[in-house]
Amino acid sequence: MQHRKLRMGMVGGGRGSFIGAVHRMGANLDGQIELVCGAFSSDPQRSVKSGHDLYLPENRCYATFEEMVLEEQKLPEGERMDFVSIVTPNHMHFAPAKAALEAGFPVIIDKPLAFTLEEARELKRIVSDTRLPFAVTYTYAAYPMVKQARAMVLSGAIGKVRKIMVEYPQGWLAEKLEDTDSKQASWRADPKRAGISNCFGDIGTHLANMAEYVSGLKITEVLAELNAFVPGRTLDDDANVLLKFEKGANGVLSASQVATGEENDIKIRIYGDKGGLEWSNRDLNTLLVKPHGAPVQIYRAGGNNPYLHDAALAHIRTPAGHPEGYIEAFANIYRNFSFDVRSHLGAASEKSSFMDYPGINDGVKGMAMIKAVVESSANGNVWTQVES
Amino acid sequence: MQHRKLRMGMVGGGRGSFIGAVHRMGANLDGQIELVCGAFSSDPQRSVKSGHDLYLPENRCYATFEEMVLEEQKLPEGERMDFVSIVTPNHMHFAPAKAALEAGFPVIIDKPLAFTLEEARELKRIVSDTRLPFAVTYTYAAYPMVKQARAMVLSGAIGKVRKIMVEYPQGWLAEKLEDTDSKQASWRADPKRAGISNCFGDIGTHLANMAEYVSGLKITEVLAELNAFVPGRTLDDDANVLLKFEKGANGVLSASQVATGEENDIKIRIYGDKGGLEWSNRDLNTLLVKPHGAPVQIYRAGGNNPYLHDAALAHIRTPAGHPEGYIEAFANIYRNFSFDVRSHLGAASEKSSFMDYPGINDGVKGMAMIKAVVESSANGNVWTQVES
Amino acid sequence: MQHRKLRMGMVGGGRGSFIGAVHRMGANLDGQIELVCGAFSSDPQRSVKSGHDLYLPENRCYATFEEMVLEEQKLPEGERMDFVSIVTPNHMHFAPAKAALEAGFPVIIDKPLAFTLEEARELKRIVSDTRLPFAVTYTYAAYPMVKQARAMVLSGAIGKVRKIMVEYPQGWLAEKLEDTDSKQASWRADPKRAGISNCFGDIGTHLANMAEYVSGLKITEVLAELNAFVPGRTLDDDANVLLKFEKGANGVLSASQVATGEENDIKIRIYGDKGGLEWSNRDLNTLLVKPHGAPVQIYRAGGNNPYLHDAALAHIRTPAGHPEGYIEAFANIYRNFSFDVRSHLGAASEKSSFMDYPGINDGVKGMAMIKAVVESSANGNVWTQVES
Amino acid sequence: MQHRKLRMGMVGGGRGSFIGAVHRMGANLDGQIELVCGAFSSDPQRSVKSGHDLYLPENRCYATFEEMVLEEQKLPEGERMDFVSIVTPNHMHFAPAKAALEAGFPVIIDKPLAFTLEEARELKRIVSDTRLPFAVTYTYAAYPMVKQARAMVLSGAIGKVRKIMVEYPQGWLAEKLEDTDSKQASWRADPKRAGISNCFGDIGTHLANMAEYVSGLKITEVLAELNAFVPGRTLDDDANVLLKFEKGANGVLSASQVATGEENDIKIRIYGDKGGLEWSNRDLNTLLVKPHGAPVQIYRAGGNNPYLHDAALAHIRTPAGHPEGYIEAFANIYRNFSFDVRSHLGAASEKSSFMDYPGINDGVKGMAMIKAVVESSANGNVWTQVES
Repeated sequence: MQHRKLRMGMVGGGRGSFIGAVHRMGANLDGQIELVCGAFSSDPQRSVKSGHDLYLPENRCYATFEEMVLEEQKLPEGERMDFVSIVTPNHMHFAPAKAALEAGFPVIIDKPLAFTLEEARELKRIVSDTRLPFAVTYTYAAYPMVKQARAMVLSGAIGKVRKIMVEYPQGWLAEKLEDTDSKQASWRADPKRAGISNCFGDIGTHLANMAEYVSGLKITEVLAELNAFVPGRTLDDDANVLLKFEKGANGVLSASQVATGEENDIKIRIYGDKGGLEWSNRDLNTLLVKPHGAPVQIYRAGGNNPYLHDAALAHIRTPAGHPEGYIEAFANIYRNFSFDVRSHLGAASEKSSFMDYPGINDGVKGMAMIKAVVESSANGNVWTQVES
Repeated sequence: MQHRKLRMGMVGGGRGSFIGAVHRMGANLDGQIELVCGAFSSDPQRSVKSGHDLYLPENRCYATFEEMVLEEQKLPEGERMDFVSIVTPNHMHFAPAKAALEAGFPVIIDKPLAFTLEEARELKRIVSDTRLPFAVTYTYAAYPMVKQARAMVLSGAIGKVRKIMVEYPQGWLAEKLEDTDSKQASWRADPKRAGISNCFGDIGTHLANMAEYVSGLKITEVLAELNAFVPGRTLDDDANVLLKFEKGANGVLSASQVATGEENDIKIRIYGDKGGLEWSNRDLNTLLVKPHGAPVQIYRAGGNNPYLHDAALAHIRTPAGHPEGYIEAFANIYRNFSFDVRSHLGAASEKSSFMDYPGINDGVKGMAMIKAVVESSANGNVWTQVES
Repeated sequence: MQHRKLRMGMVGGGRGSFIGAVHRMGANLDGQIELVCGAFSSDPQRSVKSGHDLYLPENRCYATFEEMVLEEQKLPEGERMDFVSIVTPNHMHFAPAKAALEAGFPVIIDKPLAFTLEEARELKRIVSDTRLPFAVTYTYAAYPMVKQARAMVLSGAIGKVRKIMVEYPQGWLAEKLEDTDSKQASWRADPKRAGISNCFGDIGTHLANMAEYVSGLKITEVLAELNAFVPGRTLDDDANVLLKFEKGANGVLSASQVATGEENDIKIRIYGDKGGLEWSNRDLNTLLVKPHGAPVQIYRAGGNNPYLHDAALAHIRTPAGHPEGYIEAFANIYRNFSFDVRSHLGAASEKSSFMDYPGINDGVKGMAMIKAVVESSANGNVWTQVES
Repeated sequence: MQHRKLRMGMVGGGRGSFIGAVHRMGANLDGQIELVCGAFSSDPQRSVKSGHDLYLPENRCYATFEEMVLEEQKLPEGERMDFVSIVTPNHMHFAPAKAALEAGFPVIIDKPLAFTLEEARELKRIVSDTRLPFAVTYTYAAYPMVKQARAMVLSGAIGKVRKIMVEYPQGWLAEKLEDTDSKQASWRADPKRAGISNCFGDIGTHLANMAEYVSGLKITEVLAELNAFVPGRTLDDDANVLLKFEKGANGVLSASQVATGEENDIKIRIYGDKGGLEWSNRDLNTLLVKPHGAPVQIYRAGGNNPYLHDAALAHIRTPAGHPEGYIEAFANIYRNFSFDVRSHLGAASEKSSFMDYPGINDGVKGMAMIKAVVESSANGNVWTQVES
């Protein structure tokens, strides 16, 4: 391919969308990607207006993702989109992803991967067949200090992993917000759009992914209790899960949307026989390193910090003390994914071995976890194998 | 009784003891209690030497608790001890408590109450028969900001309670310390001295008590997973428990002695439909108050803070910003208990209604919890009723 | 102007630059601005290579800023750059800013404004004559919670302001880094490039700006002590300044580059007769609100937080708990500035009254502060008027 | 002397006193000292009632300190008081201290040492003549992690000291509390009882002492600005001071009683050419250790922390994670002082070399600092030598 920015098409993310705007900012940040087209809304007029807001020409604002894929395919390389970003609600993940992949477009998609495990497996088959780059935005795996944590665990810094505690307390659904005009709340609370789980599927899935990513261990069994505390709510708004990992590690996962007064205070603590690590979204540029019998050390993100692992440094843009955040984490996934898209388009790869990102296997595992958790809870909180 | 300090006898707490020294400092602090005798050790010589360290005359340093109770009974009121403090390992709780009570002495005893639930129930019967003051030092119920939390929950400040998360991560037993000369580790790891549980019995029991105390709700069922991560260890060194409370509240309890790098970072978070509260031992003079939809407020211990509840103010000695701590929490229990001892001795009571302390019922409940947790875990992590 | 992205030219910011890359990311983030040309380095080859990295065509990578201004002027509107971003070291601020303004291009420039107060005043005259949009990237005035602080102070929330404490401890120059190949250190330590002050001019100037911005009060007098702790250093690496503000407020400013182990822990605390406020770069999405006699409140950035002032909400992109940071603060300045550039180009303005940014007056005041501080210190730490 | 508790007499500290009660709790804590007599109030009836509260016999509750000294002298050793604790307001320090010393009683006294520097020097002469133990309760020098900081600085851990920042923000006098019935506020605001300074004399003096103690360096010159922000107030309620230390170190001291919303958030940061240290009263059991170019380490108080210096360990009663506080700091001074009192009474000393406490020289230096600060401020904020 010629030396140029990558060209992105987007499905979803029209006016009023939360996560679509975040994806775009993440894609914009490093100046490597430009948005060239989109099917931003199931309402064609809204799609055009949304595209107009983003300085797109009207003919690149499509009424449907099918149209977008079809029309873009006709354009010459360098003009047509290079990949598709899918930021719709869960029930609208599978079809556009399938369409894009089958038309030869790499895909980056919001989590959870799909509406059902079956859809997820079908996507995996297609990705496997097409060998196209595919990313799932499990954001928390993209923070520099989470990368540092993983690198330290894999290098043996905390010894054999014993216990992993992950939590994600939110309070925003403590009232029945889905009965108001909250777009975000209503689709998440609706089994037809969210799937079989709300709380675990929306935020618990982040915890499971992060626990596996940091530990390098797969979750094999779950014992889950899902609650729906708010009267009249169909899907869970609270999830507590005991976890079994490979190699004898155990874990506790707790996610809640009714933890009144909490924001997105996602946290992981992981303990091995030589030490522990703690990372929290609230203080995301810090990793607490806890060697047994010695003072806790405060590792800090910062491009100039000589003690950081290359895996962390590769995802930091500024010197220590200039905080990066959520949008930068998205930018990290887009940046790493874009290296693979460039390779796919024939460019020589400049990607280092540390520039990983969550992919199709993470996506499928996420759906298997959701299924296992819902089954465990429905069956009376019993240990349930996670399909692999 | 005449206007004088109360006179305390102690069982256990000889040279090298940890908790015995803490009890004495707690008893000393307010200048209301003086130590007058003790059976400090099962080794009579050590008992005398320990008493000598504490400026006791040799004739008040007894070889056994039986001797102490017998001899002190013979002394006149005002010279003999007024109550007994028992700070021995778990297996040595029941006998001295029974002996003291049956000889008419009020008892203050370290947690857990006894070695078995049966012992606990027997003690309850005796307390009930003798109507003597009886305290169990569940310390965390004695911190001012924990009192504040309880007062706020009971007054409806956070609405109907939904979820309670309690945790107690420690790292000190991440290695097999019981194989060294650590007195503290060796008895806790020994089923003959600790009982059927180590981790849950030692620290998980604090969490259960604190959860009930703050919420005003009883735990009715548990689903527990006990782990022994350190090879060769008989008793649990890690405990994860799902909790059901009265009135539909749920909870998650996690205690660990293998959370490498952690100290005693006990924490409670409680969420109702109107707000949440968070208290942590690490920052014990703070209570985070989290109303739904409004900024979190930092309530601080301090005798001059006008917004605090009387229940908190009654347990604070200094103005805001002069930190109090662990010893002061013990002092609070001793102070509150001593009011009842004085009443028992015939003095007019000056005790306010807020000056509660954990008693025999807390102690029995603690033993029932230990039993239920161990059974749940042994039976494959199944929901298990807590006997009441 | 037509509905399109704004087109930016850049002076400085070539390969290896720190702040240039930050400016570009800030400009990229919101998808409103595209980089179209640059004079990235005084080395023409380096300028071309730097532009190539950024996907610019070679003919838009200029050897000098003079050439850039000249050539871009010749291009038609919609193709030529719409404004210039200047990110060179201090001694290279004045000439390109003057050239750009005089050619009719709005300017956004890094702080401090110029090399001398005289240059700054000359720029002010030109800005005044040309009436062109002009921004100075005093970043800390662009954080949402700093905006919140200012809005609260101006609305009287803390009453009459009495005392303002600002600090900026850094440790990176604790050794003589300018003797190594550190590009960042070497120009800052060199009077020919940095000007009459290093520490105060580089970071103290941020504090002075932030203190004035938050308080709404001008600094009128300073009593300064500048230190050069590292042997052989010509310019200051540490600055302590007593401040007098309008209306009887006082302040203490402390900036250091030899505060070993510190990052960029910029902090402001402001106390009035009714309450105080505290903001720290370390926890930038938090504002501590401290009403007299009531609990401290934790105000948090978050687009969904109903208690925030519109001035803060206008600078937040995500819901509470999704941290934004340093790059987003730059993006805020670029976004607000770009509204004025669009108006200048004839577009209808969509800018709200809260979308302010630091401008030419802030820049001049910054240079006057540097001069007064250096004089005060040189004259034996005496009170010195700040020229206005 | 025989093996027994030490016997303490107290001057001041009657009903309603704040600091007197704290001294007593500190003296009580370790069970080494018993209160035997007092002249608790200038009102003889109040003195008797206060003593009654403390279980003292009426004949040991004296109307005046002169009477106390006279009568106690007549009692036999082992019955009479062994030392005197003086906890009156500043203007009532000198006379009882002089009387006690001249009667042969060691003295422990609250800070500042006296009403004037002249009084302080006269006391120093008497202490020197009598060679009696003498302590001044500069509390912050008694915290374990402050001891740790000093030990690390003296051992070279942070290299050559460059900069020391100390601060003590309080908000309690933001309103004119001395016009209410606040006993604490009224004497502090009254030049006849507090002396020539309120804010600096009450809390700034702690900062100066702590800075010298931790650094091991003496303050030689000050440039001070004292403010009285609250209308109608005679003495300062805010103090900002530039400091020069021996050996080229500089410092900034800021104390305030009008920092609305603050408690007693005393903090010290000290920077050398190899690293920095930070200690804060808010998190008193933590010392942040900041080596240049490496992660910050969190040193924690805890009797079982192997990395702590003996100087810290000698002042800790509990394992890590069981917080100690303000009263324990007083207890540390009383404990260390009591070793010297025992030696004075002829007992073999068990005091380790680390069991230091602030003494007469600290007291005199404190008064010299107050004088120099007041003079510097009165003379227009000029550098002023601190008398030695």
